[in-house]
Amino acid sequence: MSDFSIAIHGGAGTITPASMTPDLEQKYKAALRNALEKGAGILSKGGTALDAVEQAVVVLEDTPLFNAGKGSVFTKHGQHEMDAAIMCGKTLQAGAVAGVQSIRNPIRLAAAIMQYSDHVFMSGHGAEEFARKQNLEFAPEEYFFDMLRYKQWSEVRDSDIFMLDHTAGDEKFGTVGAVAMDQHGNLAAATSTGGMTNKNYNRIGDTPVIGAGTYANNHTCAVSCTGHGEYFLRAVVAYDVSCLMEYKGYSLQEACQTVVMDKLVRLGGEGGLIAVDRAGNVAMPFNSEGMYRACVTNRSDARIAIYKDKVPEVSQKL
Amino acid sequence: MSDFSIAIHGGAGTITPASMTPDLEQKYKAALRNALEKGAGILSKGGTALDAVEQAVVVLEDTPLFNAGKGSVFTKHGQHEMDAAIMCGKTLQAGAVAGVQSIRNPIRLAAAIMQYSDHVFMSGHGAEEFARKQNLEFAPEEYFFDMLRYKQWSEVRDSDIFMLDHTAGDEKFGTVGAVAMDQHGNLAAATSTGGMTNKNYNRIGDTPVIGAGTYANNHTCAVSCTGHGEYFLRAVVAYDVSCLMEYKGYSLQEACQTVVMDKLVRLGGEGGLIAVDRAGNVAMPFNSEGMYRACVTNRSDARIAIYKDKVPEVSQKL
Repeated sequence: MSDFSIAIHGGAGTITPASMTPDLEQKYKAALRNALEKGAGILSKGGTALDAVEQAVVVLEDTPLFNAGKGSVFTKHGQHEMDAAIMCGKTLQAGAVAGVQSIRNPIRLAAAIMQYSDHVFMSGHGAEEFARKQNLEFAPEEYFFDMLRYKQWSEVRDSDIFMLDHTAGDEKFGTVGAVAMDQHGNLAAATSTGGMTNKNYNRIGDTPVIGAGTYANNHTCAVSCTGHGEYFLRAVVAYDVSCLMEYKGYSLQEACQTVVMDKLVRLGGEGGLIAVDRAGNVAMPFNSEGMYRACVTNRSDARIAIYKDKVPEVSQKL
Repeated sequence: MSDFSIAIHGGAGTITPASMTPDLEQKYKAALRNALEKGAGILSKGGTALDAVEQAVVVLEDTPLFNAGKGSVFTKHGQHEMDAAIMCGKTLQAGAVAGVQSIRNPIRLAAAIMQYSDHVFMSGHGAEEFARKQNLEFAPEEYFFDMLRYKQWSEVRDSDIFMLDHTAGDEKFGTVGAVAMDQHGNLAAATSTGGMTNKNYNRIGDTPVIGAGTYANNHTCAVSCTGHGEYFLRAVVAYDVSCLMEYKGYSLQEACQTVVMDKLVRLGGEGGLIAVDRAGNVAMPFNSEGMYRACVTNRSDARIAIYKDKVPEVSQKL
C-alpha cells in the first residue's frame, strides 16, 4: 500500500473547555471520527482523494452539530443559504456554489459543477436549476432546521448583527472541510458551510472561493479554511499557502504558520485551516481558541482534537 | 508632482483588424481615451488610486461598446447579470458583487460594499437590497439593452451554447478594468463585467473574485484580468502575479509574462490582464488576438492599443 493522508475540520472559533460538556465533546469527537473513517476508508482501498474529501464532507454536512448542510445557520430572512467548493490537485479543476437553498449536500453540487459543467462557480437559483438537471437530492426547509440554530437566530433577527457561528458563545460551531492525498499521489480539497447567522445581502464568504477558502494543487498542497471569511478572502489564504511552498520553498508547516499565525493575525482574521502536502504531511494550524479537527495517515494513528495547546489528547487506531 | 500611473482595459479576445472597421476602431480608442483621461485627471490632481480606478471603470461601464454596465450581454433568461470588484492595495480592503441586475454602475456597488459594509462579497437580490440602502442608482432593463447584444443572444438563446462575449466573431467585446498607482504610492484595482452571452445557472466568473480577476497590494502590484473566467479562477491569476513578485522577486513584467503567456496558456486559458507595480511600471500582457487597452503615467505619453504585435501605434499626450 502506498502512502495516503486525510485531515478534516468542523470549524474554528471560541471553542473552550468551559463552553463544552463532556457529553457534547464526545459527540463532536464521534462525528469527526465518522467523517475521518469515511474518507480514510476510501483512501485505504485505493480510492481517489477527490472522492475521499467529498464523502468525508458529506458525513459532516449530514451531522447537525456542524454549520453545513443539515444544521446550517439561519440568514437574516430566516432561511438557509449554503456555500461549498471542491478542487482537484491533479487537473486544477474546481467546482463551487454560493447561496443555495434546499440542496441536501452542497458539496455534491460543487462536485457536479466541476465534473459536468463548463463552469467553475454558480450561485443561487441558477445553481439549484443545475442541481435539478443533475438529479441531486433536494430537501425541504425542515430538514435543515435545527432548534439551536433557530434560537441563535431568534436572538439577533431584529438587529443588524450578524454572527460568525462560532462567536456566539454557544455550543455550536462551524464550516466543515477535508483535504487528502491518495495512494496515487493526487491531492484534493473540499469545504462546505452555512455561513454566518443572520447574514444578509446574499453575503458570500471564503468557502466557495477557489484560492481563498479552498485550493488544491499536486505540486504543493491541498487546503480547506474556516474562520472569519472576509479576512480569508482579502488574504487569498489557501493559495497563499501554496505559493509560499512553490515560490519560496517553504515546508507545509512553515507556509501554514506564516499565513495563519502571522499574516492573518496581523490583518485581524480569526480562524484556521487544514492542509496536506504532496508528501502526505498534515498541518492543522489555527489562531482561535479551538478548531474541531482530525487527521490520519497510513503511517500514523488518528488524531482527533478540539482545543489549543492540548497536543494529541486523542490518538487511536481507526 | 510625484509619480503616478494608470492602465485600463476593455476586454481581450479574438480581436483582429479583419473584424474591425476604421470607424469602429476610432470609437473604441475614443472610449478608452475618455476612461483613461478620467482616471489620469484624478491622479494628476493628487487623487487616490481607488477613486481613479472606480471612476475610469464607471466611464467604461457607461459605454455600450464594452460588456459591463450599459451594453452588458444577455443571460440565458434574457436578462443582464453583472459582476464587479474593487480592491485597495494599502489596506487590502475589498468589495465585490456577483449577479446583480438593474444596478447602473456595479463598480460603485462594489466600492460601497468595501466602504460601508462588514462584508467583502455580496450577490444577487441581497446585493441589490444593499445598493438600495446605499442610495445607489438603479436603471430600468431598457437602459442596459443594446441591439447588438440582443442579436448575439437571439442566435444562441435556444441552445445550450454560452459565449465569451469575445468569441462570437462579432464587433463587441469585453470585461472592463483599471489599475492605478497614485502620487501617495497607493495601488488599486477595479474590474466590471456582464459575463458570458447566454450564461446560465447564475454563473460567476473571475471578475468579482478577489485574487482571481482582481487584486491589489501596495507591496507588489494591482491587477485586473479579462478572459475566459473559469481558467482565471482555477489559476488564481491576479494573486499569482503578486506572489511571484513577493515570493520569487520577479519584476512585474516577468510575473505577468509567466502567468499569462506560460501558466495560463498551458492550462488553456485565453485572455490577458493589466497591472501596475509600486514603482509605477505598467504591464498589459495578453495571449489572445487582441486586448482593448490603454495606459499613461506622469512620465510617459498615453498609449492606446487594440491588436497584438503592433507596438504603440498610438502615442499621444493626454
